[in-house]
Amino acid sequence: MWIYEKTLQYPVKITKPDPATAKLIITQLGGPDGELGASMRYLNQRYSMPYREVTGMLTDIGTEELAHLEMIGAIVSQLTKDLTPDEIKKSGFDTYFVDHTAGVYPTAASGFPWSAASIGVKGDPICDLNEDMAAEQKARVTYDNILRLSDDPDVNDVIKYLREREIVHYQRFGEGLRLTLDKLDEKNVYAMNPSFP
Amino acid sequence: MWIYEKTLQYPVKITKPDPATAKLIITQLGGPDGELGASMRYLNQRYSMPYREVTGMLTDIGTEELAHLEMIGAIVSQLTKDLTPDEIKKSGFDTYFVDHTAGVYPTAASGFPWSAASIGVKGDPICDLNEDMAAEQKARVTYDNILRLSDDPDVNDVIKYLREREIVHYQRFGEGLRLTLDKLDEKNVYAMNPSFP
Amino acid sequence: MWIYEKTLQYPVKITKPDPATAKLIITQLGGPDGELGASMRYLNQRYSMPYREVTGMLTDIGTEELAHLEMIGAIVSQLTKDLTPDEIKKSGFDTYFVDHTAGVYPTAASGFPWSAASIGVKGDPICDLNEDMAAEQKARVTYDNILRLSDDPDVNDVIKYLREREIVHYQRFGEGLRLTLDKLDEKNVYAMNPSFP
Amino acid sequence: MWIYEKTLQYPVKITKPDPATAKLIITQLGGPDGELGASMRYLNQRYSMPYREVTGMLTDIGTEELAHLEMIGAIVSQLTKDLTPDEIKKSGFDTYFVDHTAGVYPTAASGFPWSAASIGVKGDPICDLNEDMAAEQKARVTYDNILRLSDDPDVNDVIKYLREREIVHYQRFGEGLRLTLDKLDEKNVYAMNPSFP
Amino acid sequence: MWIYEKTLQYPVKITKPDPATAKLIITQLGGPDGELGASMRYLNQRYSMPYREVTGMLTDIGTEELAHLEMIGAIVSQLTKDLTPDEIKKSGFDTYFVDHTAGVYPTAASGFPWSAASIGVKGDPICDLNEDMAAEQKARVTYDNILRLSDDPDVNDVIKYLREREIVHYQRFGEGLRLTLDKLDEKNVYAMNPSFP
Amino acid sequence: MWIYEKTLQYPVKITKPDPATAKLIITQLGGPDGELGASMRYLNQRYSMPYREVTGMLTDIGTEELAHLEMIGAIVSQLTKDLTPDEIKKSGFDTYFVDHTAGVYPTAASGFPWSAASIGVKGDPICDLNEDMAAEQKARVTYDNILRLSDDPDVNDVIKYLREREIVHYQRFGEGLRLTLDKLDEKNVYAMNPSFP
Repeated sequence: MWIYEKTLQYPVKITKPDPATAKLIITQLGGPDGELGASMRYLNQRYSMPYREVTGMLTDIGTEELAHLEMIGAIVSQLTKDLTPDEIKKSGFDTYFVDHTAGVYPTAASGFPWSAASIGVKGDPICDLNEDMAAEQKARVTYDNILRLSDDPDVNDVIKYLREREIVHYQRFGEGLRLTLDKLDEKNVYAMNPSFP
Repeated sequence: MWIYEKTLQYPVKITKPDPATAKLIITQLGGPDGELGASMRYLNQRYSMPYREVTGMLTDIGTEELAHLEMIGAIVSQLTKDLTPDEIKKSGFDTYFVDHTAGVYPTAASGFPWSAASIGVKGDPICDLNEDMAAEQKARVTYDNILRLSDDPDVNDVIKYLREREIVHYQRFGEGLRLTLDKLDEKNVYAMNPSFP
Repeated sequence: MWIYEKTLQYPVKITKPDPATAKLIITQLGGPDGELGASMRYLNQRYSMPYREVTGMLTDIGTEELAHLEMIGAIVSQLTKDLTPDEIKKSGFDTYFVDHTAGVYPTAASGFPWSAASIGVKGDPICDLNEDMAAEQKARVTYDNILRLSDDPDVNDVIKYLREREIVHYQRFGEGLRLTLDKLDEKNVYAMNPSFP
Repeated sequence: MWIYEKTLQYPVKITKPDPATAKLIITQLGGPDGELGASMRYLNQRYSMPYREVTGMLTDIGTEELAHLEMIGAIVSQLTKDLTPDEIKKSGFDTYFVDHTAGVYPTAASGFPWSAASIGVKGDPICDLNEDMAAEQKARVTYDNILRLSDDPDVNDVIKYLREREIVHYQRFGEGLRLTLDKLDEKNVYAMNPSFP
Repeated sequence: MWIYEKTLQYPVKITKPDPATAKLIITQLGGPDGELGASMRYLNQRYSMPYREVTGMLTDIGTEELAHLEMIGAIVSQLTKDLTPDEIKKSGFDTYFVDHTAGVYPTAASGFPWSAASIGVKGDPICDLNEDMAAEQKARVTYDNILRLSDDPDVNDVIKYLREREIVHYQRFGEGLRLTLDKLDEKNVYAMNPSFP
Repeated sequence: MWIYEKTLQYPVKITKPDPATAKLIITQLGGPDGELGASMRYLNQRYSMPYREVTGMLTDIGTEELAHLEMIGAIVSQLTKDLTPDEIKKSGFDTYFVDHTAGVYPTAASGFPWSAASIGVKGDPICDLNEDMAAEQKARVTYDNILRLSDDPDVNDVIKYLREREIVHYQRFGEGLRLTLDKLDEKNVYAMNPSFP
């Protein structure tokens, strides 16, 4: 279970509303490679992970992704404060606004509601760790792209922090994979899923 | 942000594998009215909720739903330990197993991966609280149905606990709605969304 | 069964094409809280509703929502008559137009095709009526948002009418819920879904 | 707009509950080729259809499909009356029941909630009529398959009636297509969508 | 199986980047009526098609649609080379870019990822050929609309070629349908799906 | 473009119909980690891959996955020949059959139609190769699970072949990733997506 602590993992203080950027950043909440998917992928993979060290890693990182989800929500919310109808329409934020006002809804930048089809839980340690490494790379690229498109330093400071964390997670999952391969019979890396001779 | 505490909110100790029941209970993790949807609905609605008391309520209940999600994962995982191929096929768990082995994946009982299309965040306090009350009722009915179909006392003890929590949440959201209506101009309950005369 | 009457429930006479507004209003046809969802929710909930008065209410309101669906179609169609390529592109209507020309297709403003995942039919009277009350609030907010973003009086006159109807429906479903609670054993409001002691 | 008439287009009187068959027949309500899709396809295509005769045809058939949707709902509802937990589980109806009890929800037999992705509205008369002819064939095959799998004469009598109606609709849309081709410049059947030389 | 030949079916040489047009043309790759859907529809329908001539037709056309898919990918890729952040944002390509950079991802113009819900495989020859004729019309209309919205001759030259191919395919499927009807007992065109008297 | 060769990559000769197994194997055609997804992932990633060797690898493997898709189609088709209604119902194949008869439709074992949401194309070489390695692991696990559940030697012989190919592909993508890292500035592995200092 989780205990809530009333502070963000990293402070979010946006001074200038910018719905055009909000429209893009929401994708790291509810897009294909966003924080909702990350937390749900890791927290649910724990049950079938056989090694205590890796299960702990999944708990830690999955819990941190919940904190990131909260930070992304804060960014989107702060970027869309007190908008005029004109700002909403000119920024292309209108197709989001009409259905969600300035509420924070888990959707991709494209408007596609988050779908669990974008995450994998296969119940196999080697496979799930490969999935997790790919997931971190996909999140990293999305943050790269946000940095390419946003020039608000208040936003980019937070995004750089989040991007950095994904790179750290990628490395940790790499270590988890190595540890898992070592634990499995080295002659048969798919020992848990024997090769069915 | 959240701190993880390595204990379930309520203990889950299933002694007898039962994939047929696991197939149904997974719906309270990734189904239309399950705990993933509940936590994401409440935690994301917080940003546009104008009253501190109600925001706190959303944080509390949203955080508790994360704990429920973890409990449901534990139930499903324990119900599907050490299955034989025959048990998997006879129970109808095979269509799940082929894609997820005994991993815990956020899907409905029907096999439809969780979609954010099943939750609403409208950025309007009266509306979102009505949505939340409906959500709690929908979760309550799903737990009712699980209790109708399962006769394992180890499972049902936990499900009854979870069901009871949904009823408490329904009442709390009812109080949140009353509080919100009181705070808004009583002559115009939609003061935040004026009636555009 | 239904008999078609060749007149709209409320007249729609738009004089000025405006694809940017059409792009938003289509969400009340095929968006998460639009008229397609409303009619399908109510008309299908009828079968498991045990009280004649409430079933009648669902039939009446569900049938009226079909009429609203027709009105929204008329608005979208009239707003997109005789557009030039330039008008289509500048208004952001192009991503809709490329796949549907100026046909009326049930999609959200975001471009997400309508999904039944956005409605609930739980086969429980108390639950379904809570769902319906939430649905009416969600539709009301969407109409609020359209009124915030549109300044065409021809459009807004119709939208205000539709918005008003949702508020009336909300109240009627509230009465339906009270009536249902009264009919059920007052000591056990979930008599139909007993509390499994 | 529509007026409701409190009688089914064709009587539905099922005497024997059969959840296994209900699980299949629901697909003609909310499956890829079911009555919800049919009615929404035709009623929404009307706005961009240039010929009065064809628009009338779409209104007539779309309205009749609403009546079929109601009949399918009645079949499913009657087939699932007063089931015991055991009947629910043995019939495979349990994955539906857990989320919808015995309510009527628009889903395919597979459990995939109805999606507008399964219908086409292209705003082009020749194209939309081809779409409609294909739709009627797809509905006809689904009814064929229900007849192959069900042996309850009460059910099959209604299904045969519905199947027959799809064949009639196929022929009518064929006439609509011929009429449309005749009205368009015969030398350039795509006059409405000129060949962009 | 397929052998790859390193040349496009028809040359694609775009000289001027244009992300606004790329955003629309991607729909013929991953949109509801695009080339991914076309190839998967035809190649998978082959198994249940009873006549050798028609199976061959499905193989030929399905294989050609794979080549079209490759051409559309090339168009989108060439239209999005070396974009500046400003070009990405002004063109509305930003909601795509944030999640896919300038990679080619199978989505509709609306941003809805391709779904097999948009194709039909019914295992019935008459039905599947009607589906295919409708599919070709829907693709034709989409190409019509691209030609209406694009004025780049490099793009339009390729699109006209592709559009022409869809018209040829429509005619071939029409011949396939005639051939199938001739082979079936003429007195009962649904001989494969007898009318269940 | 592709040339069709009228032979399967590896022969499929199933002697005994078995719809229960067909219901599971279809997931390697249209499921989350199946061959449709594999081919579309690799063939579309080619456009943004900067190194000729890796592009060639994506073409080769993507083309081979098309051949696998054809083989899976053949397995499913042969497993569902000449079924009686009773065999269809007892095997749980009925929910598939009612909508697709014995046609081959791209769906998961769960009945969820294939969605591009299950694949990633991020336009970044390091990221896309990590995605591909994860994809091959996910396909490998699915084949493992099929081997666990099926005991037909005719089927398993083909599945083992396909499983073996996924392991080879995993290794090749691993080499592609190493090659890509070598080509990029070693001090900054994300040179294509610089770290935005």
